[in-house]
Amino acid sequence: MTAQFSNKGEAWSARFSEPVSDLVKRYTASVFFDNRLAMVDIAGSLAHAEMLAAQGIISVLDRADIERGMAQIKSEIEAGSFEWLLDLEDVHLNIEKRLTELVGDAGKRLHTGRSRNDQVATDIRLYVRSAIDDIVLLLQSLRGALLDLAEQHADTIMPGFTHMQVAQPITFGHHMLAYVEMFGRDVERMQDARKRVNRLPLGAAALAGTTFPIDRLRVAKTLGFDDVCHNSLDAVSDRDFAIEFCAAGALVMMHVSRMSEELVIWMSPRVGFIDIADRFCTGSSIMPQKKNPDVPELARGKTGRVYGDLMSLLTLMKGQPLAYNKDNQEDKEPLFDTVDTVVDTLRIFADMAGAITVKPEAMRAAALQGYATATDLADYLVKKGLPFRDAHEAVARAVRACDDAKCDLSEMSLERLRDFSPLVADDVFAVLTLGGSVAARDHVGGTAPRQVREAIARVRAQLAS
Amino acid sequence: MTAQFSNKGEAWSARFSEPVSDLVKRYTASVFFDNRLAMVDIAGSLAHAEMLAAQGIISVLDRADIERGMAQIKSEIEAGSFEWLLDLEDVHLNIEKRLTELVGDAGKRLHTGRSRNDQVATDIRLYVRSAIDDIVLLLQSLRGALLDLAEQHADTIMPGFTHMQVAQPITFGHHMLAYVEMFGRDVERMQDARKRVNRLPLGAAALAGTTFPIDRLRVAKTLGFDDVCHNSLDAVSDRDFAIEFCAAGALVMMHVSRMSEELVIWMSPRVGFIDIADRFCTGSSIMPQKKNPDVPELARGKTGRVYGDLMSLLTLMKGQPLAYNKDNQEDKEPLFDTVDTVVDTLRIFADMAGAITVKPEAMRAAALQGYATATDLADYLVKKGLPFRDAHEAVARAVRACDDAKCDLSEMSLERLRDFSPLVADDVFAVLTLGGSVAARDHVGGTAPRQVREAIARVRAQLAS
Amino acid sequence: MTAQFSNKGEAWSARFSEPVSDLVKRYTASVFFDNRLAMVDIAGSLAHAEMLAAQGIISVLDRADIERGMAQIKSEIEAGSFEWLLDLEDVHLNIEKRLTELVGDAGKRLHTGRSRNDQVATDIRLYVRSAIDDIVLLLQSLRGALLDLAEQHADTIMPGFTHMQVAQPITFGHHMLAYVEMFGRDVERMQDARKRVNRLPLGAAALAGTTFPIDRLRVAKTLGFDDVCHNSLDAVSDRDFAIEFCAAGALVMMHVSRMSEELVIWMSPRVGFIDIADRFCTGSSIMPQKKNPDVPELARGKTGRVYGDLMSLLTLMKGQPLAYNKDNQEDKEPLFDTVDTVVDTLRIFADMAGAITVKPEAMRAAALQGYATATDLADYLVKKGLPFRDAHEAVARAVRACDDAKCDLSEMSLERLRDFSPLVADDVFAVLTLGGSVAARDHVGGTAPRQVREAIARVRAQLAS
Amino acid sequence: MTAQFSNKGEAWSARFSEPVSDLVKRYTASVFFDNRLAMVDIAGSLAHAEMLAAQGIISVLDRADIERGMAQIKSEIEAGSFEWLLDLEDVHLNIEKRLTELVGDAGKRLHTGRSRNDQVATDIRLYVRSAIDDIVLLLQSLRGALLDLAEQHADTIMPGFTHMQVAQPITFGHHMLAYVEMFGRDVERMQDARKRVNRLPLGAAALAGTTFPIDRLRVAKTLGFDDVCHNSLDAVSDRDFAIEFCAAGALVMMHVSRMSEELVIWMSPRVGFIDIADRFCTGSSIMPQKKNPDVPELARGKTGRVYGDLMSLLTLMKGQPLAYNKDNQEDKEPLFDTVDTVVDTLRIFADMAGAITVKPEAMRAAALQGYATATDLADYLVKKGLPFRDAHEAVARAVRACDDAKCDLSEMSLERLRDFSPLVADDVFAVLTLGGSVAARDHVGGTAPRQVREAIARVRAQLAS
Repeated sequence: MTAQFSNKGEAWSARFSEPVSDLVKRYTASVFFDNRLAMVDIAGSLAHAEMLAAQGIISVLDRADIERGMAQIKSEIEAGSFEWLLDLEDVHLNIEKRLTELVGDAGKRLHTGRSRNDQVATDIRLYVRSAIDDIVLLLQSLRGALLDLAEQHADTIMPGFTHMQVAQPITFGHHMLAYVEMFGRDVERMQDARKRVNRLPLGAAALAGTTFPIDRLRVAKTLGFDDVCHNSLDAVSDRDFAIEFCAAGALVMMHVSRMSEELVIWMSPRVGFIDIADRFCTGSSIMPQKKNPDVPELARGKTGRVYGDLMSLLTLMKGQPLAYNKDNQEDKEPLFDTVDTVVDTLRIFADMAGAITVKPEAMRAAALQGYATATDLADYLVKKGLPFRDAHEAVARAVRACDDAKCDLSEMSLERLRDFSPLVADDVFAVLTLGGSVAARDHVGGTAPRQVREAIARVRAQLAS
Repeated sequence: MTAQFSNKGEAWSARFSEPVSDLVKRYTASVFFDNRLAMVDIAGSLAHAEMLAAQGIISVLDRADIERGMAQIKSEIEAGSFEWLLDLEDVHLNIEKRLTELVGDAGKRLHTGRSRNDQVATDIRLYVRSAIDDIVLLLQSLRGALLDLAEQHADTIMPGFTHMQVAQPITFGHHMLAYVEMFGRDVERMQDARKRVNRLPLGAAALAGTTFPIDRLRVAKTLGFDDVCHNSLDAVSDRDFAIEFCAAGALVMMHVSRMSEELVIWMSPRVGFIDIADRFCTGSSIMPQKKNPDVPELARGKTGRVYGDLMSLLTLMKGQPLAYNKDNQEDKEPLFDTVDTVVDTLRIFADMAGAITVKPEAMRAAALQGYATATDLADYLVKKGLPFRDAHEAVARAVRACDDAKCDLSEMSLERLRDFSPLVADDVFAVLTLGGSVAARDHVGGTAPRQVREAIARVRAQLAS
Repeated sequence: MTAQFSNKGEAWSARFSEPVSDLVKRYTASVFFDNRLAMVDIAGSLAHAEMLAAQGIISVLDRADIERGMAQIKSEIEAGSFEWLLDLEDVHLNIEKRLTELVGDAGKRLHTGRSRNDQVATDIRLYVRSAIDDIVLLLQSLRGALLDLAEQHADTIMPGFTHMQVAQPITFGHHMLAYVEMFGRDVERMQDARKRVNRLPLGAAALAGTTFPIDRLRVAKTLGFDDVCHNSLDAVSDRDFAIEFCAAGALVMMHVSRMSEELVIWMSPRVGFIDIADRFCTGSSIMPQKKNPDVPELARGKTGRVYGDLMSLLTLMKGQPLAYNKDNQEDKEPLFDTVDTVVDTLRIFADMAGAITVKPEAMRAAALQGYATATDLADYLVKKGLPFRDAHEAVARAVRACDDAKCDLSEMSLERLRDFSPLVADDVFAVLTLGGSVAARDHVGGTAPRQVREAIARVRAQLAS
Repeated sequence: MTAQFSNKGEAWSARFSEPVSDLVKRYTASVFFDNRLAMVDIAGSLAHAEMLAAQGIISVLDRADIERGMAQIKSEIEAGSFEWLLDLEDVHLNIEKRLTELVGDAGKRLHTGRSRNDQVATDIRLYVRSAIDDIVLLLQSLRGALLDLAEQHADTIMPGFTHMQVAQPITFGHHMLAYVEMFGRDVERMQDARKRVNRLPLGAAALAGTTFPIDRLRVAKTLGFDDVCHNSLDAVSDRDFAIEFCAAGALVMMHVSRMSEELVIWMSPRVGFIDIADRFCTGSSIMPQKKNPDVPELARGKTGRVYGDLMSLLTLMKGQPLAYNKDNQEDKEPLFDTVDTVVDTLRIFADMAGAITVKPEAMRAAALQGYATATDLADYLVKKGLPFRDAHEAVARAVRACDDAKCDLSEMSLERLRDFSPLVADDVFAVLTLGGSVAARDHVGGTAPRQVREAIARVRAQLAS
């Protein structure tokens, strides 16, 4: 056993050598995770300074100094030469401090009429708005890739499953379109959430507004906000938008988890419906023969972290009195984690969709197992006049007979079929084929290839608009 | 120790006397919680039958029989005489069975061209749509009650808190408006969710559509749906709308929890800002003097159950392969629980808002503690030309001096104040009063009574429209 | 569209006809869900009365009256004739009120030296303790059933999967033992949780203890508690035990969800490893041929509700100040729901384990797909002197060649195998068989039938003790 | 508006310039978060090599080479000179690759008889075990600090609250002991979890065990494990221990959140019971007078992240088929985050406990509000012979009279008190004082200073053992 386990006392002191005041500093500081807000923080400050100057609260010269300083800071950050200091707590104070170094009193005037409370709320909203716009593009990109796949396989027949049992034949194109719908709703939810993100908190100051004659609508317009937050207490304490965004992200990942589950099962050798290109798979450290669908498995696993992020934020806000409390600093990491996870996952899935090889023979073979056209037979009897419940009964008996005889319904003789209902005639065999079954479901939303193609065209038109 | 604990063996057999097949029946049945869907199930069936007849799939006579039977069933349910049978599993089979008893073959024809999978999805959507409409009305009712309270106290000064420390003076009306904003966003989210609820799954049948020449748009129109679900697999497996609704409900309860927390603290004797009418409070079984704010405490606690419902549904759907799986039967109880909790809580809060007695003197006394006008002094100095950061420093020193002298800033002499900055003149005392401080925050979203009244008028106009 | 949707105004008034004070009563009452605590409440009261009499706080006559009254109440409850009144809020007041009706002043003296706060905490602990004891028995019963299944199939070879890809051959018995281990840890966790459940809060009274000369250890002994809660504030506010129990329950359900997932996949026709007896399955309302594994699917879905219960309780307790708050009334329903779900699920699973039909041929056929013995070949080469990483490389090349030639490793000629390593000799074929592979993993925890049988014997011995 | 917001196309390409194959590599790699396992990975490898040599599976020379190489790698890691490569995926391959560079074939032989699946499971268990040991020490350290505080204030009277209303007088020492109990249960839970952590998975190899004659008990002993995992499939797929640890961590943070809530409220100026030393507080960017209790607020907020971590892991494992799936790589970040959060928070709280200044006068003043001794009066009447329920009624009337007269119970005349019950005599005033009330609750767990001191001694003795 190695040293680090043998002497608890030493491990203790080694681990905890940091003096507590440094620990407090690190515990309460946010600069090492909130510095990704630097660019939106600068954008917000520039809009604020522009308004302050327009309202005569600061001078035109001060504004020019602030702009010059901020340009310098931006280039320092882009070049990686900006020095982030833990002692300055957060991204806001780091930038303001550097600004004052660069331009003196103008820097000290920038914070006039605002507070960190409304400043950080503004920054996060700018950040989330940008993330939503990225995610919407990625969702549409993934939908586009799935449409391509669906189009290639508008006629490829596979078994449709309920309860993982063969239910009725469908087309693979139709199956892919189910995900196109899911990710389409995700787009809608992101866009709806964006409306509530895109309201300006700046001007709420610490919690009550400010005594300076600010013009909030001007700042909103400059930064592209649709409206201002209409109550200053709410403006600084509201994190609804972060929660709503994470809830929308959780649904995205839920959809990803379902698609992943299917990809993993379909690639399992007993099923063998698809293959996924090697670059999305890995091997084993011990089993030389393995090719594992790592990307969908990992994506399925990452569902957990996004669910967890949502739960973190909901817990965070539960029972918080107004207005701002330090608890709220904890809003960032779950939010950033959801953004990163959703963005990375969607990018990879959009690419992976094009790297799926479909195996139509395996799909067809599976569709022939399990009496997939039994419902078609029942519908046939109904059309001949039998009430549905009676038809269902008759077919159930026929299936049991097939099971005993180890044959498919389509392999029974007409005579034998007529044992179960005298309504059966020789036109029955047309409805018992996979192709006939699929083609007959020919209404909006049905699996008929004609409907699949129309559905593809409908979504393509939306995406193009 | 009493008998029921002494003999584990007996307790065991007593508890588990039920034979396992009955347990399986009970475990898999849903009729005892899904019978609240009875009325929407009938509405869906009637719309389906109307379409089947219009399309010539069933006869006009069959449709008339179905309508007559359903009218009878509705009156039986309303009268409480309908017998729900566990053996018939769920609300759908119970009603269909009774229908067939009443009208014979027409009842057996009703299920033509549909499946329980699309039927239950339709029922839940009708139910959630109705719940959303109720909740929106209740949210607006609560907002109306808060507006009344805000109007009465547009000038009532209280301390605004950040970090539970006195920050700046605000008005109680302004504070109430923060909740009006929160519940207003809840209305928006419910309405956005409604769009995605209000799409018709019926016609998806088991998962692939049906071979009958159905007219889904006709059914959608009859039932008031905006659109149909455009993919049959997705139609039967989608529970996004339930999750999105529960997420919106979780945010409602989060807002309720924040308001509750404040009400409980405000009613605590050390704070004493408000009293709540007796009918929302209870006493103690042991302490005769107690009056406990039970309703807000319980509401705060109920936040947990709605968060839990959301997590249940997210977990439920994680990794589910398409299309329908029995897992989905578990969607109902969390959904119903969220509906009930949100509806009951909002109703009580709308009533309780009118039962809050505000104690303006206690609020004013508290606002005079904690140097609430320190920011006003800093702003004053900035307006005299000092950069904000320097003004902040000067006032911090003045506050420290007050702390030592145990006096408020407004109680310092002009001379003493000038020690901290020579820019102070005798106009300073106007900005150091609570009334002056509040009135000065006179911009959109600020706490000035004029702004509070304008904000009230703005929301009133929205509510009236 | 039917009437109940057409007129929102009426629906509103119909829905909300209940006057608000009745709603408050219902909102704050718990009697309709906490009356399942009736028997433990009575047990707790009897123990309390016994102590009060022993300490001379009440008279021996009073105690006799209380015992007589409680015996009467118990029989009323068992007979279903006890009338639970909403107006009396909860189970405690309902019983106490009835007791006073039956025995007069003695009933009024029962509450001496206690409060509802410590009374309800005692009741829940008695309830959870009993639930744990039931659950432990059920877990052991399920483990016993899995052991039987494992024993029958100690030699039945199936493919072991990682990433849902064939990895190495294992036995079905070995696979079942994995679940025996999981449910064994669940037993341990339940027993560990029991230690913290089994401490007596009674005597804490409202929050501070009581002025009467009570004897808490006597009550603890009477009720079978291991110890008393050592701080009165903590005693009435602690709900750790409920959370810890629900966390243990969540792990039980997680294990159930994994087993369910496997059962569902194994019963899918493309896999076909098992069949489950009809009484755990249902058919379809539309597809006559379906046999769906409802019980494991539903159990998998119920995982969500138990996760949700846990999250409810964690949220409930977050940030609650001491000591008792009304929020805590919300502890019961999630707890009861977890108890019911875990108990019902385990009972059914214990029965279902004996109703699984294994299909050894399908398992063997699957094990022959996917080069399950590739690792054996690598190990063989290592034993001949090749470093593991080099052996792994050589075998990977051999597998690729098999893939091209569409044959298994065991079907290659010795000559061909030697192309990949000259170390291969004709003893290689023994290690390339499924039986050889399985038998070779012959160490503690390995899949060799000998080890499987030893593992079964080990657990059997534990269960017997 | 600044450039980065104006041109979505550019932002897109700028953001997503990374080619997808690099993204896949980053998406699936874990080395940048799992390298904190380096030291335990090396410890595990050394124990494995020792056993391989002892069993004759590798040579003694090989083992010596491995030990030499590992010593070198450890010093490189400690010196910060070890180069972690994304291309080598994870900590295990990075170290093994470097080992092979340093010592050649011996390095390639290290992986004999194991797989990454059992290797990583071993590493995490070693890591969690060490984290538990740290956390137990920190919990005891925090308990020690709270005991000190409790001892200083064993006689300091404060109001005990239920429902945030004054209930009965207690001592501050007694209140602190409630947290000593909570954190004591946390210690127990961590220790119970440790038993299930401390079992060795190594030897399970990929999933089925290995064909080499390994000695798992020897490795277990070397690494200080109590036992081996008894089923190889379970060994590689089990993450119960991580979930159980995170659940225990969630309870720790729940307790922290309750204590934080109280500290924040107590430091609010209207309450003013305590002050917290400056180094745990910060000021405001805008309000110069503020002193905010940042540390407890932030700790309360961090509760959310640990709840979220737990939910992540539960979701991760839901429905996973055996044995290992790539999903499981997602187990690490939530686990590490919980460890870091709990460790940092406990350290700071242990230090902060000593930095709390108690304000006894404010506490006493508050205890005199709200008729804290009303229960004492009721108990007094019971002792004089009145049944408890009647005494409760009588005191409730007296309290109402005090409320009208704006006086405390102790300020009423004997005559006036006798109006409510003729049993009152002049010995009543002794029980109506705060000190008398507190001293009278003199039984195990009660708030009497004598009991508080005994409780402190009891825990001190435990800590010393």
